[in-house]
Amino acid sequence: MAFHLIPRDTKFFDMFAEMAGNLGEAARLLKQILDDFKDIETRVQKLKDIEHRGDELTHNILTKLNQTFITPFDREDIYRLASSLDDVLDFTYSAGVRLVMYKITGAPPAASQLAEIVVKQSDQLLQAVARLDKKHDRVLECCVEINRLENEADAVSRAAIGELFDKEKDPISLIKLKELYEALETATDKAEDAANVLEGVVLKSA
Amino acid sequence: MAFHLIPRDTKFFDMFAEMAGNLGEAARLLKQILDDFKDIETRVQKLKDIEHRGDELTHNILTKLNQTFITPFDREDIYRLASSLDDVLDFTYSAGVRLVMYKITGAPPAASQLAEIVVKQSDQLLQAVARLDKKHDRVLECCVEINRLENEADAVSRAAIGELFDKEKDPISLIKLKELYEALETATDKAEDAANVLEGVVLKSA
Amino acid sequence: MAFHLIPRDTKFFDMFAEMAGNLGEAARLLKQILDDFKDIETRVQKLKDIEHRGDELTHNILTKLNQTFITPFDREDIYRLASSLDDVLDFTYSAGVRLVMYKITGAPPAASQLAEIVVKQSDQLLQAVARLDKKHDRVLECCVEINRLENEADAVSRAAIGELFDKEKDPISLIKLKELYEALETATDKAEDAANVLEGVVLKSA
Repeated sequence: MAFHLIPRDTKFFDMFAEMAGNLGEAARLLKQILDDFKDIETRVQKLKDIEHRGDELTHNILTKLNQTFITPFDREDIYRLASSLDDVLDFTYSAGVRLVMYKITGAPPAASQLAEIVVKQSDQLLQAVARLDKKHDRVLECCVEINRLENEADAVSRAAIGELFDKEKDPISLIKLKELYEALETATDKAEDAANVLEGVVLKSA
Repeated sequence: MAFHLIPRDTKFFDMFAEMAGNLGEAARLLKQILDDFKDIETRVQKLKDIEHRGDELTHNILTKLNQTFITPFDREDIYRLASSLDDVLDFTYSAGVRLVMYKITGAPPAASQLAEIVVKQSDQLLQAVARLDKKHDRVLECCVEINRLENEADAVSRAAIGELFDKEKDPISLIKLKELYEALETATDKAEDAANVLEGVVLKSA
Repeated sequence: MAFHLIPRDTKFFDMFAEMAGNLGEAARLLKQILDDFKDIETRVQKLKDIEHRGDELTHNILTKLNQTFITPFDREDIYRLASSLDDVLDFTYSAGVRLVMYKITGAPPAASQLAEIVVKQSDQLLQAVARLDKKHDRVLECCVEINRLENEADAVSRAAIGELFDKEKDPISLIKLKELYEALETATDKAEDAANVLEGVVLKSA
């Protein structure tokens, strides 16, 4: 890794930055929907378009990986980073889908708080991948923050689900909101997976 | 990869074909059960036997992988392909188990439609692995079709779950059918994972 | 692998033994809680401390992996073994969290039986990793036993969930206990994943 006799393809970094940016767009849109439940169907359709673009970006990275001999970091790490970023987007979209599928017309503030955490994680992920080929200290700082945000999401989601079981007497309504929280919380878990890959990439190159 | 100076072990291809064939058998049996809910226990026991055979086939491939130095394609891809084919079978069986465990005695047509999609994906997977050592264009066509089928399953499952929440007033019955749909839909996701591995194998060898 | 010209780092084995020991501690504590539902909050907090220590141990192994050039066995296997041991602990803790989050104040004997199976699997995992650098036959025996225990957990969990759907008429209570069983059963699945990695390591070195 140290000599760079063979020029490494830096385009992977741009592609990851595009994935993280697209993810941020999805998380922001979901947060807006959860702050103001109107035109749900139209806005979740827009979320679907973003998710579809994310699928294409993931596919492009993996195709490029399969056609590239010398990669800027370990093949397995490229694979895992693309997969985990794709997972964050999938669970973000999956939260949105539940609004339509379950006809959810409102949710406690915890749902929007969780979406806000995904927004913050996406921003950190974007900063981290944008600095992956140079400022390694900054990458590690982003990873620490993404993990902290996941812990925060864990606490928010547990408190919200605990309250749901305390107060919601209608089992079907309970199932709906519980799944909405869980989809959002899982999105933050997947962002932590991505951060763990990024941390590993930095440590290996140290 | 291009020279084949060292003869590569082609038996892996046969083993994957056997896995895909076994999976097709399970999916077909599940479809039949969902079309005609009789003798559930006996027929799900037969499904369990097929699942057990699948476990053995997976185990044999991984054992062979661990004992083979030169593999016909990347070790990680062999591992992932075996794991994802095993996952499709696990979720197919898991749908069958729910019929017994929850004493489900009937289900809307969507359940059988989802099983039919798993049957079609299994057939495509069998065709793809059977052509993996030669007709690469045909493999890619199968992968495209498997992905299309997964999208179809997504739409069928979402519509069915949406209708369930609209119409089913008994929460316990709702939980049962929701999980049946979800197990089937997850089976189609895992088939897509297998297709993605196959696509990668083809692209790397291009 | 046969020559050991380059001294391999054996400290990985100690770290895995520490992870397995920590896991055993968590499983034993959870079993005690499920046998006697008192001071739940305090004891689940203690479980959280153990889970937190487990996170640190996992992180240390992965950091060491990223900084080590010659590893005692395949990098991917070290990664997978650490991840699956971490998963067993996560689901063990997740079962404990549900007791607090859902205010569960009692559970049928099946819950404690499942925790007991996780205890036994943890003990087998500890024995297996402690023998990984020498007594390979003994490692394989442990793997067989871990798989047998997973099958046992499967049967216990299915019977318990089946009975729950037969007897529990309150959907919300049903959801709570069903998730408790599922978290425990998933913990045993993840132990099987760890055993599969260990089996692979042994077979590759044979």
